[in-house]
Amino acid sequence: FASTFSGSNLPNGLPKSRGVSNSGESSKESSRCSTPVLDTDRLQDKMKRRIESGDHWFSLEFFPPRTASGAVNLISRFDRMGSGGPLFIDVTWHPAGDPGSDKETSSMIIASTAVNYCGLESVLHLTCCNQTKEKITAHLNKAKRLGLKNIMALRGDPIGEDWVEEDGGFNYATDLVKHIRCEFDDYFDICVAGYPTGHPEAESYEDDLRHLKEKVDSGAHFIVTQLFFRAETFLKFVKDCRAVGITCPILPGIFPIQGYHSLRQLVKLSKLEVPEEITQVIEPIKDNDAAIRSYGIQQAVEMCKVLLASGEVPGLHFYTLNREVATMEVLRQLGLWAEDPRRPLPWAVSAHPKRKVEDVRPIFWASRPKSYIYRTQDWDDFPNGRWGNSSSPAFGELTDYYLFYLKSKSPKEALLQMWGEELMNEESVYEVFTNYITAQTNRNGHKVMCLPWNDDPLAPETNLLKDELEKVNRRGVLTINSQPNINGKPSSDPIVGWGPAGGYVFQKAYLEFFTSSENVTALLQVLKKYEPRVNYHIVNVQGRNTTNAHDMQPNAVTWGIFPGREIIQPTVVDPVSFMYWKDEAFALWIEQWAKLYEDESPSRMIIQYIHDNYFLVNLVDNDFPLDSCLWQVIEDMFALLDSPRETQEGSQS
Amino acid sequence: FASTFSGSNLPNGLPKSRGVSNSGESSKESSRCSTPVLDTDRLQDKMKRRIESGDHWFSLEFFPPRTASGAVNLISRFDRMGSGGPLFIDVTWHPAGDPGSDKETSSMIIASTAVNYCGLESVLHLTCCNQTKEKITAHLNKAKRLGLKNIMALRGDPIGEDWVEEDGGFNYATDLVKHIRCEFDDYFDICVAGYPTGHPEAESYEDDLRHLKEKVDSGAHFIVTQLFFRAETFLKFVKDCRAVGITCPILPGIFPIQGYHSLRQLVKLSKLEVPEEITQVIEPIKDNDAAIRSYGIQQAVEMCKVLLASGEVPGLHFYTLNREVATMEVLRQLGLWAEDPRRPLPWAVSAHPKRKVEDVRPIFWASRPKSYIYRTQDWDDFPNGRWGNSSSPAFGELTDYYLFYLKSKSPKEALLQMWGEELMNEESVYEVFTNYITAQTNRNGHKVMCLPWNDDPLAPETNLLKDELEKVNRRGVLTINSQPNINGKPSSDPIVGWGPAGGYVFQKAYLEFFTSSENVTALLQVLKKYEPRVNYHIVNVQGRNTTNAHDMQPNAVTWGIFPGREIIQPTVVDPVSFMYWKDEAFALWIEQWAKLYEDESPSRMIIQYIHDNYFLVNLVDNDFPLDSCLWQVIEDMFALLDSPRETQEGSQS
Repeated sequence: FASTFSGSNLPNGLPKSRGVSNSGESSKESSRCSTPVLDTDRLQDKMKRRIESGDHWFSLEFFPPRTASGAVNLISRFDRMGSGGPLFIDVTWHPAGDPGSDKETSSMIIASTAVNYCGLESVLHLTCCNQTKEKITAHLNKAKRLGLKNIMALRGDPIGEDWVEEDGGFNYATDLVKHIRCEFDDYFDICVAGYPTGHPEAESYEDDLRHLKEKVDSGAHFIVTQLFFRAETFLKFVKDCRAVGITCPILPGIFPIQGYHSLRQLVKLSKLEVPEEITQVIEPIKDNDAAIRSYGIQQAVEMCKVLLASGEVPGLHFYTLNREVATMEVLRQLGLWAEDPRRPLPWAVSAHPKRKVEDVRPIFWASRPKSYIYRTQDWDDFPNGRWGNSSSPAFGELTDYYLFYLKSKSPKEALLQMWGEELMNEESVYEVFTNYITAQTNRNGHKVMCLPWNDDPLAPETNLLKDELEKVNRRGVLTINSQPNINGKPSSDPIVGWGPAGGYVFQKAYLEFFTSSENVTALLQVLKKYEPRVNYHIVNVQGRNTTNAHDMQPNAVTWGIFPGREIIQPTVVDPVSFMYWKDEAFALWIEQWAKLYEDESPSRMIIQYIHDNYFLVNLVDNDFPLDSCLWQVIEDMFALLDSPRETQEGSQS
Repeated sequence: FASTFSGSNLPNGLPKSRGVSNSGESSKESSRCSTPVLDTDRLQDKMKRRIESGDHWFSLEFFPPRTASGAVNLISRFDRMGSGGPLFIDVTWHPAGDPGSDKETSSMIIASTAVNYCGLESVLHLTCCNQTKEKITAHLNKAKRLGLKNIMALRGDPIGEDWVEEDGGFNYATDLVKHIRCEFDDYFDICVAGYPTGHPEAESYEDDLRHLKEKVDSGAHFIVTQLFFRAETFLKFVKDCRAVGITCPILPGIFPIQGYHSLRQLVKLSKLEVPEEITQVIEPIKDNDAAIRSYGIQQAVEMCKVLLASGEVPGLHFYTLNREVATMEVLRQLGLWAEDPRRPLPWAVSAHPKRKVEDVRPIFWASRPKSYIYRTQDWDDFPNGRWGNSSSPAFGELTDYYLFYLKSKSPKEALLQMWGEELMNEESVYEVFTNYITAQTNRNGHKVMCLPWNDDPLAPETNLLKDELEKVNRRGVLTINSQPNINGKPSSDPIVGWGPAGGYVFQKAYLEFFTSSENVTALLQVLKKYEPRVNYHIVNVQGRNTTNAHDMQPNAVTWGIFPGREIIQPTVVDPVSFMYWKDEAFALWIEQWAKLYEDESPSRMIIQYIHDNYFLVNLVDNDFPLDSCLWQVIEDMFALLDSPRETQEGSQS
């Protein structure tokens, strides 16, 4: 009995490159407690994987805003530009602007918001010139505490005319890189700046390359370059870098020209010369902003095409100047903008290292994810796989409620136009909800674009339920959250899909609304007929919870089945969290709506009455393979209310 | 705006009895980290709930066997009788039989096996007469360590004729009850014995009732009575117990008469009198065993009906004498036997307190659950919700492999008849597998009822795949585990259903087999066409694992969706566990099959060759909503093997 082949001499056709491990033992640690879908890689690892696969990426640079409303706008921009799929964004650091403070406009807070609330991999710039080591270490500690994992290490511009090197101080970015490595080991991924035409203060181009090599050797992971105007400038620079032994990724800084003055200013600051062929085009059209923007886009696209075709450029770094249009257009033309981004989960995953394993959340905050992140920011660990594994389930208080990014993006005047300068009665409120659902103009000609519980227009998924929602809102079932049932759609479905390819996603129908106590009385009668198919939780502002949910267990209402994975259940109706959510949901009536009106005004008293007397109801239809019965439940409730009084009493006995 | 009603004055129709909590806060602890389906109640709580719901139960008493093969039989009986749904079983204690030892026949080990391996709530008897406190405490500590939670506290029969009370010793069961409470607080649920006609040694019936009251007051949770022959005897006893203030459950001990001699013997031991109306029936038929058994069943059924109808009896306790037929028949006629027991999970849940939260296992041990429990008995905690939460994933070694309950139930002669006195070649082995699948007799006229990997005939679920399995086994794809795909069948489905009512269960198709290296070479070619639909792990006895499974993550292959619950995924294909399983799966070739034959015999060398050269393969079809493609994969493999050599080589390049 001769052996055909031995264990070490495997048959032909065995895949050699991946998936082959010599024993189960070795990979044991890595397969335990890991999260099935989410990406926990470091930025440098993500780059490595993208370079290996030949998959080009882009990144976006922003500067911190000057005002609080500028911050609100920038964060909305993060959400919009984040959806295009940047590998990372970075936030610049301006020593004069108190960049490390807790102000809502500081570099530190903006970068932290991008990571925590917008789920963006973010790089925080840091300059070291004229800074003490203690100060720098304090900044880095704070960045680490806030969940930042990447630093762009810069020297920064010396303050004052005659800067001299300081012994033992931070004279060069290299000193900062060394300091970060020394104090924080390899906690941070580090980026450094490259100058394709040499640093303006360097003795020579060659001397500058030597400095860059030093910076990288001190522990930087990749290079982003200063802007330039010709592809060949960058490609020569990469060649020279490789020649002196720099092997890390070098990302070209792309500056789409967006206006005559911004170009002049930037060129002056960076001490660059605009090439002849560009000034020749621009000077004649310098007063035609649209023409210049259009040229800028075309020029950037062409340069980027050359860069990408060279094989030397794994990704493009864009100087956005905090604007959207030009950069997005360039990326669209290059085919790098993700038009239909795949969602790893149904909600946007936070990029905070501690939260990267998070893969289940209560459904209640679906339209207020930033509020959820804010209220759970002090949790020690996050539910991973099953709700309730978290050891610190307490939700943050609503005391810091007025934190800027929880406020509505719309000014008071716009809100009054949408929600009514003057409310006549409860029905006026029903009308606001109905107009929000239908996206029709109200009697004053304004569209209702948001509600206190939904800062954005109806999601495409909710739109599927529009007709039914309109009908019930018109009659005072004031819906604030809902999802249709889904019985196994492909994970690639453009509306309800999420998670890895080749999977199937499922949902139970969900409906959440405010309604009057009269309605609740009838509803509870009706719900008896729907046992155990429908689970409900009904609570008023005082907090008494009426439910038929067994043992107060969470009910999974969204889940997905994927090749080679455990089940993922990213959304649950959790009875415990519902009690925290109802405080927020009821408070929004007062804080965002009632307070628009004068004290004691009838409008304010109407909202106050609803707040004090209505119930918050949530309903789950557990029979996900069948058509949702929740609309029938509401119809039955109205039928009971419409029936003669005796019938109602009869059915109660 | 007057409030319609205040928070404390809820609308009519609110359910008052359950599900109403005054705030989310209070129930927070209980809803965290709990397991969604499994029952973690104590025996006394289970009784309370059944009494409240009016749901009658039964329990079964066994005595420890005298021989190792008796133990194997008794454990099989536990499995069979456990399927009828007893609330608990109990195991008697015989001081002369070394009941606390580690022998496979000891009361301690039998009760522990019932709990750990058969998943039965179990009560261990313990007698205290002539025992030191240290000895008793040692027994209790051992019971606790083995996962036992319930003790039947008895005095036991004094050894020797003239027993006298000992100062400070254990003279009565009351002393034992007190001792258990004192040393173990409320860790154990305690049962005590009641004597419907008074204890034979008691001064009077009244005196005995007083003793019983004392036993209960010392900390017992329920009473099981001595056997009796008339319902009114028990009902009077219950009335008298209630009159003296005994409030705990009192369970009647039912003894179905199973034979003339066993009745005589029992009556003698218990010093009971058989009533006239029974002796009159029995004496004339005392040599007709069948007639006596039949009478015994009828007599027990009638008495039990009276007891249950009285409203005083929440459950019946059966003295089985380690026999099945009579007790099962009585329970069937009473409608108490669970004909179609609902499975909380697809596999039998262990009753060990530590394991009660366990709700996910690797699929590999599906036919060897006792081996899995044995090899994971030292785990500190068990996966709950997601595989890999376990902090101690190492599997126990196979050194104690020959532990009696891991051995085949069949004697060597029977195995040789089934698996062949003499094997001619590898094809002889294929034939054994094929005959096992088809349940047909082999060429010597014997049915193959088991294989080393499956100690029982094909499961009903596997039977669904019978035709396909037969076809592939005939050609040397030697299947040892499989399941069909299921796309959302009701949880009440008699074959594949499990879990709470109103849910839906799902499965991915799974196939596991041994096959030759030639087949594996072709299979790996074929599998390229099935990427990423099919996940595979292929390993030989040396342990090199060839797989296309991402990151060695577990693949959930059985899951269920239930009303008001999180998703439950009780079975996974875990790559890490597979490496432990393959050691066991390969070892079974040698330990259970090859060793049936003489050293150096051709039969033994054939099995040894297969062990040394075959591969163990598992395949998962991730596309559970479609028909399984795994049979097509195997067909494609055979087609490739059957094709001319050039084609094979061509397709490899």
